[in-house]
Amino acid sequence: MNETLNALLAPKSIAVVGASNDFSRIGGMLLKYLLKFGYRGKIYPVNPKYEDIDGIKCYSSIGNLPERIDTALIALAAKLVPDSLRECAQRGIKTAIVYSAGFAETGGEGRRKQEELREIIRQGEMKVCGPNCIGIVNFTEDIAMSFSGFLEADRLVSGNVGFVSESGALGGSIVNRAQDRNIGFSYFISTGNEADLDLTDFMAFLIDDPNTQVIMAYVEGIRDTRKFAKVAKRALELGKPIVVLKVGETEGGKRVAATHTGSLAGSDAVYSAVFKQYGVIRVEEYDDLIETAMLFSKSKLPKGNRVGILTGTGGGAIILADKIAKNGLGLPALSQFTREQLSQKVESFATVGNPMDLTGQLYSQPEMFKGVIQLFSQDENIDVVAVAISMVPGERARARAHYIIDAAKTVDKPFVSWWAAGNLSESAFGLLDESKVSLFKSPERCIKAVKSAVTYSQARERFLLKDKEPPPPPIDSDKADTIFSTSEQTMTEHEAKLLLALYGIPITREEVATSATQAAQIAEKIGYPVALKVNSPQITHKSEAGGIRLNLTSKSALIKAYPELLANCQKYAPKAKIEGVLVQEMAKEGVEVIIGVSRDPQFGLVLMFGLGGIFVEILRDVSMRLVPITRRDAEEMVREIKGYQILTGARGKPRADIEAIIDLLLKVSNLASDWGDSISELDLNPVVVFEDGQGAKVLDALCVKRSN
Amino acid sequence: MNETLNALLAPKSIAVVGASNDFSRIGGMLLKYLLKFGYRGKIYPVNPKYEDIDGIKCYSSIGNLPERIDTALIALAAKLVPDSLRECAQRGIKTAIVYSAGFAETGGEGRRKQEELREIIRQGEMKVCGPNCIGIVNFTEDIAMSFSGFLEADRLVSGNVGFVSESGALGGSIVNRAQDRNIGFSYFISTGNEADLDLTDFMAFLIDDPNTQVIMAYVEGIRDTRKFAKVAKRALELGKPIVVLKVGETEGGKRVAATHTGSLAGSDAVYSAVFKQYGVIRVEEYDDLIETAMLFSKSKLPKGNRVGILTGTGGGAIILADKIAKNGLGLPALSQFTREQLSQKVESFATVGNPMDLTGQLYSQPEMFKGVIQLFSQDENIDVVAVAISMVPGERARARAHYIIDAAKTVDKPFVSWWAAGNLSESAFGLLDESKVSLFKSPERCIKAVKSAVTYSQARERFLLKDKEPPPPPIDSDKADTIFSTSEQTMTEHEAKLLLALYGIPITREEVATSATQAAQIAEKIGYPVALKVNSPQITHKSEAGGIRLNLTSKSALIKAYPELLANCQKYAPKAKIEGVLVQEMAKEGVEVIIGVSRDPQFGLVLMFGLGGIFVEILRDVSMRLVPITRRDAEEMVREIKGYQILTGARGKPRADIEAIIDLLLKVSNLASDWGDSISELDLNPVVVFEDGQGAKVLDALCVKRSN
Repeated sequence: MNETLNALLAPKSIAVVGASNDFSRIGGMLLKYLLKFGYRGKIYPVNPKYEDIDGIKCYSSIGNLPERIDTALIALAAKLVPDSLRECAQRGIKTAIVYSAGFAETGGEGRRKQEELREIIRQGEMKVCGPNCIGIVNFTEDIAMSFSGFLEADRLVSGNVGFVSESGALGGSIVNRAQDRNIGFSYFISTGNEADLDLTDFMAFLIDDPNTQVIMAYVEGIRDTRKFAKVAKRALELGKPIVVLKVGETEGGKRVAATHTGSLAGSDAVYSAVFKQYGVIRVEEYDDLIETAMLFSKSKLPKGNRVGILTGTGGGAIILADKIAKNGLGLPALSQFTREQLSQKVESFATVGNPMDLTGQLYSQPEMFKGVIQLFSQDENIDVVAVAISMVPGERARARAHYIIDAAKTVDKPFVSWWAAGNLSESAFGLLDESKVSLFKSPERCIKAVKSAVTYSQARERFLLKDKEPPPPPIDSDKADTIFSTSEQTMTEHEAKLLLALYGIPITREEVATSATQAAQIAEKIGYPVALKVNSPQITHKSEAGGIRLNLTSKSALIKAYPELLANCQKYAPKAKIEGVLVQEMAKEGVEVIIGVSRDPQFGLVLMFGLGGIFVEILRDVSMRLVPITRRDAEEMVREIKGYQILTGARGKPRADIEAIIDLLLKVSNLASDWGDSISELDLNPVVVFEDGQGAKVLDALCVKRSN
Repeated sequence: MNETLNALLAPKSIAVVGASNDFSRIGGMLLKYLLKFGYRGKIYPVNPKYEDIDGIKCYSSIGNLPERIDTALIALAAKLVPDSLRECAQRGIKTAIVYSAGFAETGGEGRRKQEELREIIRQGEMKVCGPNCIGIVNFTEDIAMSFSGFLEADRLVSGNVGFVSESGALGGSIVNRAQDRNIGFSYFISTGNEADLDLTDFMAFLIDDPNTQVIMAYVEGIRDTRKFAKVAKRALELGKPIVVLKVGETEGGKRVAATHTGSLAGSDAVYSAVFKQYGVIRVEEYDDLIETAMLFSKSKLPKGNRVGILTGTGGGAIILADKIAKNGLGLPALSQFTREQLSQKVESFATVGNPMDLTGQLYSQPEMFKGVIQLFSQDENIDVVAVAISMVPGERARARAHYIIDAAKTVDKPFVSWWAAGNLSESAFGLLDESKVSLFKSPERCIKAVKSAVTYSQARERFLLKDKEPPPPPIDSDKADTIFSTSEQTMTEHEAKLLLALYGIPITREEVATSATQAAQIAEKIGYPVALKVNSPQITHKSEAGGIRLNLTSKSALIKAYPELLANCQKYAPKAKIEGVLVQEMAKEGVEVIIGVSRDPQFGLVLMFGLGGIFVEILRDVSMRLVPITRRDAEEMVREIKGYQILTGARGKPRADIEAIIDLLLKVSNLASDWGDSISELDLNPVVVFEDGQGAKVLDALCVKRSN
């Protein structure tokens, strides 16, 4: 496929179908920008109305083109697009960009028209970008196949950032903003309605493109999430960070997105979980996208999370220190060596430390900064150098910028600088933007970008170090098959637990009894106290039905409880099939957690973990990952919930067996992975986790099979 | 005091003490900027070295000045400052700005020198700004008494924003940024070390200044918090919003702030609570400060929280809708009337609604925007008009800006616009910056600013509507006096509860017994079941001591428990004075909450509310206000905790008696307010809240008196 994509993204010859000599129309603008930026291949305008446009020979139809060109840029009214694509196919043209609007984004009829395009593309074995897109710009080779307003700029800044956008208008805006800051691109790709090629296809291309080192994406929804996961994994392997702005994070935003793109919108929380799982950096805000990509584009990855702050303003140091703390980064002490060296430089007016505040003294001794930053940035305790600069205007600003840039050349660490002042420092901004130092106007975004770099660096390290995890032990799949084939759509608790047990998941000792006498025999074997629970696929709310009796401490209590329980259930659900009563051990106390598997419409099976009670029900404090997970994923799932302290032994309680939870998560992931197609929902609720070293046990389980 | 402050902030005559003919030195720059911006009063340089500077006669000392000038700008080495201030005092000069560094910010010796200044100022009955400050600029009268780099700009943009900053460097930077955006100031005041005049003094001045409508402040710490609360209240009364960037929000940031300013740093959470209580808008980020002040400066307050989004980009609509949802603002449907009118304008290509997305069609019909925005912004359902614009360059950008500006003139609502593109749209940015429309480059900041405006508008509405709350009923202060005078430093539970009861706070029925027999008599009166609790000022951890027995259901159980409990306590704390045993009713079940009063080093008595258990202990989910509170404060305290749902009846439980909690909070506030000087800590923990209508009851209470 990459050869075809190459023809699309770096064509040697281009037809502009619907070319116009009116440069305010799309067909005119495409020509104008191709010429403006000096496209070096062959251009064939196609329009029966003209002999030539601006001296370039014009062809009456695609069929009449003198050669089999690489790609066709189609800027026709929607109703003319299908025939035009058919002609391309007949002429052996394999790729096209369709700019025309009036397809799926307009709803009903448009959706039908887009289906027609898709069919033509499929039959012609073509690869097409669009429709309803703003096109593609290849910055490395100056090929502007777009009519985005950012092409009004004088030049294209080429560089190592590849950008795929599901919005043409915002995409163009982002490029404009980035180019203002001298951030260079390899490609800008606006995917439009994604009738054929989608976001992930283009990301896959960029990941293997030698000119692209960072992938930036504006995302409204991902169509093929398995493909996405694969691409993200490959990017992590190659060390090419993917920075994503995913919109539609709230229900309100999702509704707007749904009417806008007509795309399926999966749960945003699942998107976040998936991004985390595959090392994709999700940024919070519009401007973070550009500035995070800038940092990745300019700097090597930080070796750790320790930031050194150098400043001439105490206020600047406080703000950066606040943001560092909030983002969980480190503000280490300087090494003895650096402290001694710095003390000699700064005399009495400043205290040597981190933050290193050179105070208003910089005002009368601006050149002092030069020596200090050289020393400071070499400190072995510092992984990232952050410089805060405030109201320094004109020449002094330029000098300050040069000091920073020079220091950044001497050490192999990311340099970021937050400049608090405005346009009076502008000449310095330009110098920094042309250098390896990442300039930020906002202290919050500065430190957020550093945090992203640290997060990515850790994700990549984990990926490279990851142990070959042993394959899960084989299970008795005949037994599992039997459970699936003999159970009803909702399995009974006991069936669900037998299934769990096949995967080595610890469950309560229990057996089903069909009489009070048998129940007593089982209880004898298990040992009192026991619980009785109605065993019926139709009664899922057992407590509500009066179908549970806990803590029965003697045979007599059990014999008395048994018929009462049955009577309750028969009254509650007269038609329910009652398959006896489950006699179950009463597990000792511990921390209650919940492990669940559910099916996201977008991503498929999602594994969920949370603490019981209010943590899940009121605080929605859960962590999620796609099935299957790795051990590291399981560890992170446990650690990232807000109530994690409960597990480590808050409020005078002992530490819970966290290792047992991790083990359980992995086993549930194995189960879900094996039986994914047959399961719609699996809930282990509650799972009681005992003191460290004493394991965990599933007290109740619900498994709903998928209806076919 | 305002007359003196007027002499400082709008002086008719100025002495520059330490004036220099070297315009790169502070004493030179002060002269340079006074002249540059055309100071219309009299300038007297003071320096024995010169006859004149730039043709202005120079005086050898303050004593030799020909008149009693309004204010002295002192730019001398630190060691010369005390004498200089003494001379001012002798000459009857009442105000001064001290720029010199080398005082409290350098620690030990500097702190002593600053104390010396303070004493001179006090004796001279002067009002002084600084030391270690960057000065004051009066924009309305073009008086630049500062050497901040922002004065390198060609002009001072005057306007209605008064700005007080506890950082000179960041303060100047912020002014530079704001002036780039055409945001006009009345005053910029850098407070420096605040040896005399502090942040709050200047805020008080600005609030009564007719040229100032919005107060903006950069805050590291507030020295006199009672004064601040008073000033904030007055600002709310006059409808002048205070927008604050308070730094040192984390422990890390606070540590840096402490070394930087040497100032007391109270709990940041208390700062937030106080700001909320007095209608002060606290912004999250550096750039929010300017942009929030801009919105207040340009627009009337919104009448409600309903935002209408008008856009040409679907992506822009999604992002704004996301932020609106996240900030709890409304995205209402358009009125029938507007919908009908708009339908006629936009034909089939766009769906009429909110967000109103005019799609790529704007590309070929840009003038359509004009009519649509006129109609859209008049919709009665919309309180704030938000426009998103993306990659629109050059002339088209200017036209778009004009359409928005024209529409904003016809309706009395705040207009905000988020412009996604970069410098190619720059000419439009200038137009918007000069208009009443607030321009944002970041969608997040745009909606955050709208949220701040809505929050302020609500706070002010509440303030204006606030009922004259009835004065708290008189209490028997003799009885309270007796409790305070007879109790030890830590009151017994029973003493604390008797105190609560004096304020009408419902406590458990209980009495102290000194023998098992007496205990049984009391229990008979109260009714079984009862609890026994050791009554000793020395045993505050009663459970740990084995000093509590709950749920005693009979006389025999009580008679048995009594001596056991005493034995436990004697073993646990052999020296403790045991004043009998408290016999207490067992209250029925409910939701457990905690109400506490503690003493913040900065703000004094703080009232705290939270849910019991993990909510306070693990999640730190508490709300706070300064004592005394209003009924509205109490309502907000209950509503703003994250676990509020627990009270309204989550998880199948009935709604709790929220009115009873509000009543309790008010009564505890009254108690704390009456006995504030005598109390160091008061904890009602737990308070059990019954079903709606059934009240609440304090189960246990701890009161620690203040040591003198």
